[in-house]
Amino acid sequence: MPILNKDMSVCISLAGRPSNLGTRFHNFLYDELGLNFIYKAFTTDDVEGAVRGIRALGIRGCSVSMPFKEAVIPLVDVMEESAAAIESVNTIVNDDGVLTASNTDYEAIAQLIAEHSLDPASRVLVRGSGGMAKAVVAAFRGAGFDDLTVLARNAVAGPALAAKYGYAWVAAEGAAATDDPALGFDIIVNVTPLGMNGTDAEVLSFSPSSVERASVVFDVVAFPAETPLVVAGRAAGKRVISGAEVIALQAARQFERYTGVALTREQVARASAFSRAE
Amino acid sequence: MPILNKDMSVCISLAGRPSNLGTRFHNFLYDELGLNFIYKAFTTDDVEGAVRGIRALGIRGCSVSMPFKEAVIPLVDVMEESAAAIESVNTIVNDDGVLTASNTDYEAIAQLIAEHSLDPASRVLVRGSGGMAKAVVAAFRGAGFDDLTVLARNAVAGPALAAKYGYAWVAAEGAAATDDPALGFDIIVNVTPLGMNGTDAEVLSFSPSSVERASVVFDVVAFPAETPLVVAGRAAGKRVISGAEVIALQAARQFERYTGVALTREQVARASAFSRAE
Repeated sequence: MPILNKDMSVCISLAGRPSNLGTRFHNFLYDELGLNFIYKAFTTDDVEGAVRGIRALGIRGCSVSMPFKEAVIPLVDVMEESAAAIESVNTIVNDDGVLTASNTDYEAIAQLIAEHSLDPASRVLVRGSGGMAKAVVAAFRGAGFDDLTVLARNAVAGPALAAKYGYAWVAAEGAAATDDPALGFDIIVNVTPLGMNGTDAEVLSFSPSSVERASVVFDVVAFPAETPLVVAGRAAGKRVISGAEVIALQAARQFERYTGVALTREQVARASAFSRAE
Repeated sequence: MPILNKDMSVCISLAGRPSNLGTRFHNFLYDELGLNFIYKAFTTDDVEGAVRGIRALGIRGCSVSMPFKEAVIPLVDVMEESAAAIESVNTIVNDDGVLTASNTDYEAIAQLIAEHSLDPASRVLVRGSGGMAKAVVAAFRGAGFDDLTVLARNAVAGPALAAKYGYAWVAAEGAAATDDPALGFDIIVNVTPLGMNGTDAEVLSFSPSSVERASVVFDVVAFPAETPLVVAGRAAGKRVISGAEVIALQAARQFERYTGVALTREQVARASAFSRAE
């Protein structure tokens, strides 16, 4: 990168525990494309003050991660449908002081459902009921899927999420809960931290028999790219959609909103690889 | 510079009309010294929101320029003497949420008075009565100068500044006002925009005869480095102190406050040259 200059547009992220991924992804592409932008991750204990700072400093864009995705809603001016539908924001764009919120996670999942030509007649099992699970369930509903089950321990969020979209809920009692062959899910989607780097890194988020019965295995966990579920899905010859795809695609959509530049698939792939290579 | 990363400390500036100087000066040295910092100039129409953003985002330091030097006073937690004495802030350091304000312009001028061994028995003429003139006059008072005249058109700010430090005021009626040989000033200091890039670039801020009578010619104007006054002072064989020295020295003091790294004279000179070379 060249030495910074005063005219650079600045994009930031707000996260409880920032990763280096966005900072590396966006700056890699700014550098490659010669865009006069910088991107830097931040955390905060005052999200209202942070958004006020975005306005006061004319910061061009802000990526929003846990736990701020709902807290920013009253702080923006315009909610796009992608964010309003699931009451969750992951992207803020500042156009001359007007803050517009969207959710590129939702958009990315909808795009992946379409690109992988997932069949709306499929029986879908979604494990999880957090913010990202809202995006996943809403995207399946938006794509015309009628048969979806939310598998979640949380006896408040789980049934609430399922009911909102007219779907069923079953309480998760470990992966065994999905072993009932009667369930026969075609598409299984993990939206919990199971398999993520950390304490649950070794955990397969669905049972081997669930993987065996499915035709599509979809893991939203992005770290590592090769989660136990992704590895098991590939080994079983299933169509696999990984969290690495989700995070790269949603970042690409943020990139386009911030800069106006639409990325090629190859640019996204290289920036994604760079962002993970450290 | 390498690609940015999430752990970089961020310093910014706030100015009504940002120049590229600070951004280039600080980033050049971060790069050369391998410090994990970035620096970026901003402007704002909401200085209170900007300072709240500094707190909320954990921004490490903020350089403050016109017209915000007084407006930030109620927004910080601690006023160092350099800023309190002249009620003007040009530097804010954020130590874990505690904002401490100082004025490195004042410090730089005091240091230059000392380094150039200016004689406190000299008769000093300071032209100007704005924020920077406050720093200049206070620094001369702090260095023990008893005989100083403030030359200023502003019939409120001029006499107020002079009176605050027990000095005299004369109204400026063009440079001719200083031509009275009886005045016989040893040190003449320009703290107006006369000679600065822009509409007054060609204007010599003191008359040729004033320059001739003086032994020290001091111009606070930093752009260009070679103002008409600096050029005239050098041509007449006077000791010359330039605005380029002031701005480099004050930036070096900010740099040390933000990073904890004290710069060598040679590092300051190279960063200053880089910052001006575009």
